[in-house]
Amino acid sequence: MITIVAKCSAKAGKAEELIPLALNLVDSSRKEEGNVSYNFYADAADPAKFTFIEVWKDQAAIDYHNKTPHFQGFVAKADPLFAGPLDIALYQKLS
Amino acid sequence: MITIVAKCSAKAGKAEELIPLALNLVDSSRKEEGNVSYNFYADAADPAKFTFIEVWKDQAAIDYHNKTPHFQGFVAKADPLFAGPLDIALYQKLS
Repeated sequence: MITIVAKCSAKAGKAEELIPLALNLVDSSRKEEGNVSYNFYADAADPAKFTFIEVWKDQAAIDYHNKTPHFQGFVAKADPLFAGPLDIALYQKLS
Repeated sequence: MITIVAKCSAKAGKAEELIPLALNLVDSSRKEEGNVSYNFYADAADPAKFTFIEVWKDQAAIDYHNKTPHFQGFVAKADPLFAGPLDIALYQKLS
């Protein structure tokens, strides 16, 4: 399994637009066969910051996800709302 | 519930010392009444980078955790192994 932590920041005043897009992405992504879990979080210290924490069966599941219409559609709609590039890291669970 | 993502980097050559300290911390932290989950991950792209992803019942559980001998002992032993300050963020789950 592979865990992804993807942090993002919304431009000023754009968080309320970003949130429903992200929630739709969560719903669709959880239905993928290769997805183990897909959650979306608000930073407790900064209302413009969010993170996705995702668990996937393997790299093939991530590659598939990145080509899905729901992911591509999210990227197209959300990209203008992001304050900068996403901070994305992939992890292997040690314990 | 509160989710914590705590990213850390080991100094060159110190990752192998850091890992068992972190695994001990995981074991002890999971036994706390206020802990929901406590996992430790290796960054797939950089063998010196790691992250903890922790879920706690509430802020009181985090405050208790931060005072436990296993957490304080980890900090004392691991601090000289870290390449810099930890990147710690607290999150509220939106979905």
